[in-house]
Formats: sequence, structure tokens, C-alpha cells
Amino acid sequence: MDFKIAVLAGDGIGPEISVQGVEVMSAVCEKFGHKVSYEHAICGADAIDKVGDPFPEATYQVCKDADAVLFSAVGDPKFDNDPTAKVRPEQGLLAMRKKLGLFANIRPVQTFKCLIHKSPLRAELVENADFICIRELTGGMYFGEKYQDNDKAYDTNYYTRPEIERILKVAFEYAMKRRKHLTVVDKANVLASSRLWRQIAQEMAPNYPEVTTDYMFVDNAAMKMIQEPAFFDVMVTENTFGDILTDEGSVISGSMGLLPSASTGESTPVFEPIHGSWPQAKGLNIANPLAQILSVAMLFEYFDLKEEGALIRKAVDASLDANVRTPEIQVAGGEKYGTKEVGQWIADYIRKA
Amino acid sequence: MDFKIAVLAGDGIGPEISVQGVEVMSAVCEKFGHKVSYEHAICGADAIDKVGDPFPEATYQVCKDADAVLFSAVGDPKFDNDPTAKVRPEQGLLAMRKKLGLFANIRPVQTFKCLIHKSPLRAELVENADFICIRELTGGMYFGEKYQDNDKAYDTNYYTRPEIERILKVAFEYAMKRRKHLTVVDKANVLASSRLWRQIAQEMAPNYPEVTTDYMFVDNAAMKMIQEPAFFDVMVTENTFGDILTDEGSVISGSMGLLPSASTGESTPVFEPIHGSWPQAKGLNIANPLAQILSVAMLFEYFDLKEEGALIRKAVDASLDANVRTPEIQVAGGEKYGTKEVGQWIADYIRKA
Ligand SMILES: CC(C)[C@H](C(=O)O)[C@@H](O)C(=O)O
Ligand SMILES: CC(C)[C@H](C(=O)O)[C@@H](O)C(=O)O
Repeated sequence: MDFKIAVLAGDGIGPEISVQGVEVMSAVCEKFGHKVSYEHAICGADAIDKVGDPFPEATYQVCKDADAVLFSAVGDPKFDNDPTAKVRPEQGLLAMRKKLGLFANIRPVQTFKCLIHKSPLRAELVENADFICIRELTGGMYFGEKYQDNDKAYDTNYYTRPEIERILKVAFEYAMKRRKHLTVVDKANVLASSRLWRQIAQEMAPNYPEVTTDYMFVDNAAMKMIQEPAFFDVMVTENTFGDILTDEGSVISGSMGLLPSASTGESTPVFEPIHGSWPQAKGLNIANPLAQILSVAMLFEYFDLKEEGALIRKAVDASLDANVRTPEIQVAGGEKYGTKEVGQWIADYIRKA
Repeated sequence: MDFKIAVLAGDGIGPEISVQGVEVMSAVCEKFGHKVSYEHAICGADAIDKVGDPFPEATYQVCKDADAVLFSAVGDPKFDNDPTAKVRPEQGLLAMRKKLGLFANIRPVQTFKCLIHKSPLRAELVENADFICIRELTGGMYFGEKYQDNDKAYDTNYYTRPEIERILKVAFEYAMKRRKHLTVVDKANVLASSRLWRQIAQEMAPNYPEVTTDYMFVDNAAMKMIQEPAFFDVMVTENTFGDILTDEGSVISGSMGLLPSASTGESTPVFEPIHGSWPQAKGLNIANPLAQILSVAMLFEYFDLKEEGALIRKAVDASLDANVRTPEIQVAGGEKYGTKEVGQWIADYIRKA
């Protein structure tokens, strides 16, 4: 293939891990004979500082013209204590999602054997957890009509049938490729929007007769994910519930710093770590590049290049086994590797494979 | 005091645990020289079957005229697979909340030493957890304007200033009575309603200078509760977020079957276990009455009768220590006690104290 990749490094540790993602992408392309070119573009607090817009039109154009976006992280503490500031890095994220039509956010929740002890859950509960959270990303309260004055405020949780159908289609298809178990999460005992979700899911389910589809209220799902995470295979839900549940899911694995995600939809897909910009670590060469590197694996897999993805995963596992790890996951007494060194080790492994 | 208690036993195991709650209430009143009278009323699936309404007007009147409601549980599996059924037990709950103006749902998350091993979290994380979740219960998407047809649907997350102020007042006051740490949970980086919540909390915080108030996004709160539950003292949030977070909170303690809750507001307060109606156990005399009994402790404490509450808590601890426990928490080899026997033991303990 001939890849045109938009690289959005963003803020904090973003630029450092981005370099390692690119490095690994290049190594794989070399190895498998793909061509690749990169176009860098600004976003987040960095773009606010430079041009006053966290997702400038020029960045949008770069993304639109690319085959895929390799995204790192946005966010800066100077915006944190003022959620009402007119321009904020998060708005760049929301603008990117909406403009690129990224309606499906896909987050695998996976454990790494050597990191199970980092999970807040008891090991026996979490060690068999392996599921995918699919979150609708361009609808619901995030984008519905809003109003606020000094005395009242509202947000509208609005969904249309096509919005619901397309995300459920993604979910059913993921389930077909996996253990064929889909859990549709909603609050259909209270919300009208949830009732439409459930109705449409029930209409679609017969088209996937091999998939066991079950329905769970969001409060139950929040509990079940902790009590029995291995229950889940593919879980799908609307935007706001998904925001909460995907974060809850990421934390139970104990491997939050290693989890990638994909956002796909109408135009260019975006691949990114689920962790944030960790501003305190900026420039220190201590951030773990594995989530970014695994998001490159998701990128290849998106294009059905399974071997490429698998090689990256193998290299990551090898680095962990060899204790080539950044400080936060290094074993006691082990040498601490930097962001750069871990990325380099993995790229070398791939080249030599 | 002269207590007039409305007893709403509801469905499933409700009636069985209700009897034990009443038994303990009576024992305490005897002991401390309070008078108490009970008025029983129907609700839930039971009331649908009998009069076609899960919270009939007659039940409302009984509640309204009482000093407190002792509620057990509602819900029946025959309604479970049809979230769109016209009449459902849950509507009774929502009607009760709205009609009695129960805007504050208060759920202590507490661990019991002897049950820590039942927590899905690693013991060292959860053993110091001791916090209160306060959920707004009569506003937001639960009660905002709704619409649904075959092609679109919406719910409205609407809040007014007085609704927000009164629940935050409850939260600040709880914080004052505890470790003086309040966490206001919202999604102010995305939602207009959350921005109003945060603005009002920031306006009110200076009136409670001893309270450390912090603000947390709901996705972060869902993670923090698992990663470091001991961080929290009092947490307050809106209705929908509260539905999810209070359930998440209850499960991390490993003592879900033992946790009570209070719902308070404009009129008669309601005290109830947080667990459901467990229809499968109905009539088997195996349901744990402790959550119901501890909700009686909350009832006394609501009326500032601290000694009465403390005696119930002491009796519950003593029953656990003596291994007088229902099957699901009995130690290996220990005799299994029934709902009735546990309740009786505790009532006797109180009478003899
Ligand atoms: C930063 C914020 C707007 C965003 C969201 O809520 O979607 C983030 O929490 C996420 O989950 O990607
Ligand atoms: C049964 C349902 C309507 C209710 C709610 O969502 O409030 C329940 O989940 C609860 O938390 O009390």
C-alpha cells in the first residue's frame, strides 16, 4: 500500500510518543514493502497558542486528504481550571470528531500478563478480560442543542435512526469477528433515546443470527465491568455513557498506558492512545510509547493488514518480556528505558524480524 | 419521639426484609422509649397487579402523612424484557421520588472488614474506602422533556439554579459533618448543564471555607473510584451520572447486600436498601436483611437520634462477628442463618443491650 499519514502530535508528551509511532510505522512499511509519507499538522493547546484554534482548518484539510490520522494527545493544565474558557483544547477533539465524521470510537480493553498486578481488580477477575468498547462519538448530548444562562441550563440527548443504525452495524460486525457476543448498553427503562437504541438493536439483531445480543442498563454495566469483566466481548453504547464506561474499562486492565483506540466513520480514521497528554512528563523522555505504537497496529488492522498489526503486537510483547520498559512499568531493579529507547527497540525488532 | 412509619415492602424479597426492618425499628423504639406506628402500603409490581399503578395515590397519601418511609424493593422479571411496557414497577419509583420531592439520594459506601475479600478490588485499595455519594434524584434527563418516534428520539438534561443549589447545600452540609472534602462531579468540559452546576458550586464554596471542594469530570470519577476509592469523602452529582456512579461505588465495597440509602427532600424521607428485589429468592428466607436494617439506622440518624443509629450499627457488627449471617456471606463451615433469624438476632441484641 501507499500510505499518506496525517501526524497530529498535540500537547505534553504527545510529540515524544508521536515520533515513536512514526518510527514503528516506518519500520513496518519498510519490512512489508509499503510506501508511507507523513504530513504533520498542529492541534490542541499547541494550535490554540499558534493560531487560536485547537483544530484549525489547515489541520482538517491535512486529515481529510490522508488515509489515516496518527494522533497523540491534547490538553494543557493552563485550561484545566476554567471549563468555561472560550477556546479549549477539548474543542479541537470534538471538532475533529464531528468534521471527520468519526462516529465510532473503538477501544479494546486488553490485559498484559506482566501488568495484571497493576490492575485495581483482583487478578483472577481481570486476567481473562478481553473486550471491546464501542462508543458512539458524534451524537447525543455532546452535540445536541444546548442552552445556559445564570438560572437554568440544558443539553439535549438527541439521536436519529441512521446515527444509531450505523454504530450498531459497526458493533455487530466486530462481534462477528470476535466471540459473537454483543452487549447493548442503554437506560431504556428511563430514557426515550435509549428506547430507540434498543428498538433498533432488536430490529437488527436477527440479521446477525450467530451473534448473542444482550441488553444491559448502564448502571448494571458499570457494575458488571468490575465484577465480571470477562463477561464482555463487544459492548456498544451512546456517546455520554461511552465516555464513562470506556474510561472505567481502561482502568480495570491495569494497562491504561498501553491501550490504543481507533475512531472511524465517514472519512479518515484516527488512531490514538487512550491516555492523555501528561504535561508534567513533557520532554522528560519517560512517557510510555506503547499505546501510541499499538495504535499503529490498529491502523494496519483497519486496512486489513493483519500480519503487519500482528508483528507490532509481537514486538511490543517482546519488549515487555525483555523488560525494555519505561519507568512506570519497569520491574524492581530493572534498567529504566526512555520513550525513545523503547520505541527504538521495537522498531529494531520489527526490522530484524 | 412518636414515629409514624409508612412501610412499603414491594416485590420479591421486599416483604421478607421489610418485616425484619420493622422488627428492629420496634426494638429500638422500645429500648429508647419512642412510640412507633406502622402503616403498610402497596407499590411496585405488586401494586400494578392489584390496582394497575406502581405508586397508587393511596400509597402516596400514606407516605405523605408519615414521618418516614421504610421502603424495601420493587421489580419483577415479567417486566424485564419489555422496557417499553406501558406500566412498569420502575415508574413507581420515579413517581415516588417526584411526588415526595426526594431530590437527594444519599448512599454511604462503606466496607465491612469481614467482607473485604468479597470486593472485586484489591483489599489494600478498598479497605479504607468510606465515602458518601449524593445523587440529585428529581431532575436531569430522568424528568426532562422527552420525545420518541420511529426515526428519532431525545431526552433533555434540564436543570434550574434552585434545583442545583438545594442538592449542593445537602452535599456541603454532609461534607461539614464528615472529613470536609467535597468532590463535585460533572462534565463541564462538554455539557452546558454541567457548567451551570460547576458555576453554582464555585459560588457556594466560599460559604463553606472549611470544606475542600474539588471538581472532577465524570469519566475521571468513574476511574478514580476504582483506582483510589479512599480519595473520596463526599461526592455529589446530577441524576444520570449519579445512577452510574452510585452503583459503581456500591459494588467496589464488596458489601452491596449490606448498603442502605436515604432519599430526602421536600417531604417525607425514604430509607431503603440499595439492592433490588431479587425475585429468585422470594419466600426462601435467604435474603440478607442487613441493608434494610441499616436503612433503619439511617432513619434514626436523619432525626438526629445518633445513639439509636449507633446501637443498630453495633448490633449489625456483632451479628457479623458472631457469624450470624445469611448464606451468601457465611464463612466456610459456618451455620447458615435465614432472613428471619438474622433479623431476630439483631432485634434481641438491641433489646438486651
Ligand atoms: C476531553 C473530552 C471532551 C473527551 C470526551 O469526553 O469525549 C475525553 O474525555 C474522551 O473520552 O475522549
Ligand atoms: C430502576 C431505575 C429507574 C432506577 C434509576 O435509574 O434511578 C435505579 O437504577 C436506581 O438507581 O434507583
